Amino acid sequence: MVIEHAVLNVKAGQTDAFESAMREAKPLIAASPGFEGIEVRPSVREENQYLLIVRWRDIAAHEDGFRKSEHYAKWRELLHGFYESMPQVTYFEEPIVS
Amino acid sequence: MVIEHAVLNVKAGQTDAFESAMREAKPLIAASPGFEGIEVRPSVREENQYLLIVRWRDIAAHEDGFRKSEHYAKWRELLHGFYESMPQVTYFEEPIVS
Repeated sequence: MVIEHAVLNVKAGQTDAFESAMREAKPLIAASPGFEGIEVRPSVREENQYLLIVRWRDIAAHEDGFRKSEHYAKWRELLHGFYESMPQVTYFEEPIVS
Repeated sequence: MVIEHAVLNVKAGQTDAFESAMREAKPLIAASPGFEGIEVRPSVREENQYLLIVRWRDIAAHEDGFRKSEHYAKWRELLHGFYESMPQVTYFEEPIVS
């Protein structure tokens, strides 16, 4: 299992619409083979910032599976207009301490 | 519950020693009131980079509890010498989607 990690910076004044769109988009990613879970958390102190963590079976499930799917086209359409800048995705492995 | 989030950049060539030190340090943070869990995950593609996530009852458990404790002094002593730059901590709330 790997996690996909990104900090999302949403345009000012658009957080409510972004949150609705994320709830609408969730089933698109959840239906993707190798998807194992998602969390989208608002920052406590940084306005308009969210942490996205998606658990995948492996990186291929994200890069070769979801990102090349029609569901991803719809995901982009729902969400990408809200981002102040394009999110940088990093993958992390199983914990060395937990 | 909140999560403390930081990306840790460890000095080149010191990851094995850092991982050992983190395993040694874990009981120090785990004993702190309001601690609810920790994950330290290596990046898949960014050498020397780790994701730290600590679950706390609230921010005060971290800032006013752990960080002002003697355990934190020992935690710093064990770990802070490994960081290429001082980690930026961000707090995130309960998920709006999960």
